[in-house]
Amino acid sequence: MAKNFTSREQDFSKWYNELVIKADLAQNSDVRGCMVIKPYGYSIWESMQAELDKMFKETGHSNAYFPLLIPKSYLSKEAEHVEGFAKECAVVTHYRLKNDENGEGLIVDPDAKLEEELIIRPTSETIIWNTYRGWIQSHRDLPILINQWANVMRWEMRTRIFLRTSEFLWQEGHTAHATEQEAVDETKQMLDVYADFSENYMAVPVIKGVKTINERFPGAIDTYCIEALMQDGKALQAGTSHFLGQKFSKTFDVKFTDTDGKQKFVWASSWGVSTRLMGALIMSHSDDEGLIVPPKLAPIQVAIIPIYKGEEQLIAISEKLAPVIQELKDRGVRVKFDNRDNQRPGWKFAQYEFQGVPIRLALGNRDLESGNIEVARRDEKTKEVISFDGVVDHVANLLVEIQANLFNKAKTYRDDRITAVDSYEQFKSVINDKGGFVSAHWDGTTDTELRIKEETAATIRCIPLDNVLEEGKCILTGKPSTQRVLFAKAY
Amino acid sequence: MAKNFTSREQDFSKWYNELVIKADLAQNSDVRGCMVIKPYGYSIWESMQAELDKMFKETGHSNAYFPLLIPKSYLSKEAEHVEGFAKECAVVTHYRLKNDENGEGLIVDPDAKLEEELIIRPTSETIIWNTYRGWIQSHRDLPILINQWANVMRWEMRTRIFLRTSEFLWQEGHTAHATEQEAVDETKQMLDVYADFSENYMAVPVIKGVKTINERFPGAIDTYCIEALMQDGKALQAGTSHFLGQKFSKTFDVKFTDTDGKQKFVWASSWGVSTRLMGALIMSHSDDEGLIVPPKLAPIQVAIIPIYKGEEQLIAISEKLAPVIQELKDRGVRVKFDNRDNQRPGWKFAQYEFQGVPIRLALGNRDLESGNIEVARRDEKTKEVISFDGVVDHVANLLVEIQANLFNKAKTYRDDRITAVDSYEQFKSVINDKGGFVSAHWDGTTDTELRIKEETAATIRCIPLDNVLEEGKCILTGKPSTQRVLFAKAY
Repeated sequence: MAKNFTSREQDFSKWYNELVIKADLAQNSDVRGCMVIKPYGYSIWESMQAELDKMFKETGHSNAYFPLLIPKSYLSKEAEHVEGFAKECAVVTHYRLKNDENGEGLIVDPDAKLEEELIIRPTSETIIWNTYRGWIQSHRDLPILINQWANVMRWEMRTRIFLRTSEFLWQEGHTAHATEQEAVDETKQMLDVYADFSENYMAVPVIKGVKTINERFPGAIDTYCIEALMQDGKALQAGTSHFLGQKFSKTFDVKFTDTDGKQKFVWASSWGVSTRLMGALIMSHSDDEGLIVPPKLAPIQVAIIPIYKGEEQLIAISEKLAPVIQELKDRGVRVKFDNRDNQRPGWKFAQYEFQGVPIRLALGNRDLESGNIEVARRDEKTKEVISFDGVVDHVANLLVEIQANLFNKAKTYRDDRITAVDSYEQFKSVINDKGGFVSAHWDGTTDTELRIKEETAATIRCIPLDNVLEEGKCILTGKPSTQRVLFAKAY
Repeated sequence: MAKNFTSREQDFSKWYNELVIKADLAQNSDVRGCMVIKPYGYSIWESMQAELDKMFKETGHSNAYFPLLIPKSYLSKEAEHVEGFAKECAVVTHYRLKNDENGEGLIVDPDAKLEEELIIRPTSETIIWNTYRGWIQSHRDLPILINQWANVMRWEMRTRIFLRTSEFLWQEGHTAHATEQEAVDETKQMLDVYADFSENYMAVPVIKGVKTINERFPGAIDTYCIEALMQDGKALQAGTSHFLGQKFSKTFDVKFTDTDGKQKFVWASSWGVSTRLMGALIMSHSDDEGLIVPPKLAPIQVAIIPIYKGEEQLIAISEKLAPVIQELKDRGVRVKFDNRDNQRPGWKFAQYEFQGVPIRLALGNRDLESGNIEVARRDEKTKEVISFDGVVDHVANLLVEIQANLFNKAKTYRDDRITAVDSYEQFKSVINDKGGFVSAHWDGTTDTELRIKEETAATIRCIPLDNVLEEGKCILTGKPSTQRVLFAKAY
């Protein structure tokens, strides 16, 4: 299956596109910028959803659902918000089609024009805060801790499957609080949840930071983010959590009576991760043999393949394996026993390897006699023959080991690519040759940030939350700076 | 909480609307016909989703995701399909907004007109079959057994929360098969899954049947359905499963090479249930005291309320309850211990009653001394005091009993309202006065069906699958008929 497959070194971008198709994750549709997520890709997304949803609920959030369509006038209400999203909106203008009287076929019925155009949500702050107005009167109604799993649409000009698509799937949290501190705490808590998920489930190390003004979410006071590093040395923003202050509550007039009897505007946060995480997962771990999925998110953790000739051997092998399969399932391991008769073992090996299944077990007639079983791990592409009796414990331990190994490899790779520089020459050379994050002083102005971007294609990914304050000079302007920020070329 | 609440007898429709709002299930949004599903309502929908999803996976289906937007030309390809959906489509015509140069504010940018209009999916047969063409070459690629959880949009003129909304949430299964028989079997299997879910989880008895030509899904060869009866004597179609024959494979040119080496068109089914089920759930069981949720779908199965004065009593009560709560949770019971200090017990009792929580436990200081606990069941509005020691078993058994009781009550109600009639006079009198299903002979023509609908507002809900063939005469035309069909006024 890895035949006709571009290597990462040859062309990383082509490698990514081919991998997405060949591993049956997703494909482009005929609708510009919209993707079809295929069953195998979707099952990984379902694993992600399940873990995130659990984390959201454990931190007190409930799910709800708000309308897909947003009146144009809502979007216009918050100036920065509209500036950020108006240029890439899918607009519904009519509500009926009809057969053309002149034989032109199916046309939009001009009599069915909407009085006010509706926008397919690019994000839901406006419609949600318009709704919250009716839900909040008193401090007793706060906090509101809601999450929504939904599809959203941003009409992107250049799309890339999973990474930047016109329609994508995501979750968006929208919370309402009585105090500024509570809203800030919530914003940071959700950033921690995202970092936890990314590192401990996706095995993708991230840097937590805050965005510059220029990179903020349109309508936010502060945008916090987690930034990951892909195998081509480019950064990827994997999740954001926004402190919205009172911007949306003021725009939509959402007030509450506080314990002191006074009317106050509500404080807000919003936070989201999307199917973009699929791109981050793929580009963090996979190799020239295909996809690698960390065990905790793998729809199939262990593929078991019988090597046999004839029914009799298959029966003997199946009987031997049955208790092992049961025991693994009882321990919560997701096992697939692939006894399909219409494909050869070699084909199956190649398929599970390409689809990134963490562990493959193979049992043949000879193994029955010797009391052994072959265990192959996808991350290191190693094989070993072990005693059949210990296989369940071995597999359970190996899954833990693979999860840790993937994280450690990605972390070593990432840590080796955080380079501190003190001159613009050095900056440009690292950005162009070595890649990764470049830690450098910056004078704090949007002007400088944009000039650096124009000249080097690198953007400020974030100001790390754990930054040490340190006097220095801006690499471009030489003006004084109090701390380093992280630059990188990014997805 | 049941104050200012209309009774079912006073005005069933008003009762329903008030219940949906007061039980915090959902509300209308400012966007015509689109609803906001509130956290409590959404949590019931999540319970439904979880059970259905499990059933789909157990029958071999995988989830996937297809684009929200469908090119207008796809919809036009299948004649009946377009006829059925073109009149109620939300149409995307532009992809950008801009600030008007004449100061009119945010307007649709005329330069951003799409070459081809896009329709928000009313259902996904067209885009999915257009995709399947690329997935299917050989009989080895079949069957394809896919389900999608998604939002869809049908621009309804008269909307009703949960029952008929412009946007609704649903699942749509789309399967592809090598033979007609397999596709028919799949269609019927999914009808059985829906009936199983409806009866054994929702506690809503249903009649399985097939629709008349007039009531078929646009593009189907046969539409199978499950029909339920609401407490006002009106029927509600709770789920449909369609045998699509080769209509969509021919329309989208989806062929496969069969084992005999010949090229053949693929056979198809599609099937769906939606947030409409929330309406069915509400109108089947709830009463003049509010919502009643069957235990298997209740987000909270047991609400436990401490009756106390002062911190000391609360601590003592909490300590007594802690092991019971743990034991219930260990048995998989969804428990809420409501120790909020800002609401009185009476307010909490009213809330859980109105929201339909199956069992309420209350423990006070006096109970601590006597070793008892109060158990209230929502379905029968009965209370009893039992020995504290046996409470875990009691609750576990009671949940099973309540689930069965709700189903049995609904079934008795429904069975009492299937009336066989042999004359049109009798038909009209039963339809108008008694309500429910009317079993009558019909001559099999759409003409007669439509005349009866016009004159009585009753439609043919289905031809029951377990029908006994029986000679008779059509109640309207007197023409010969071979079996009875079920009529009713319906949602």
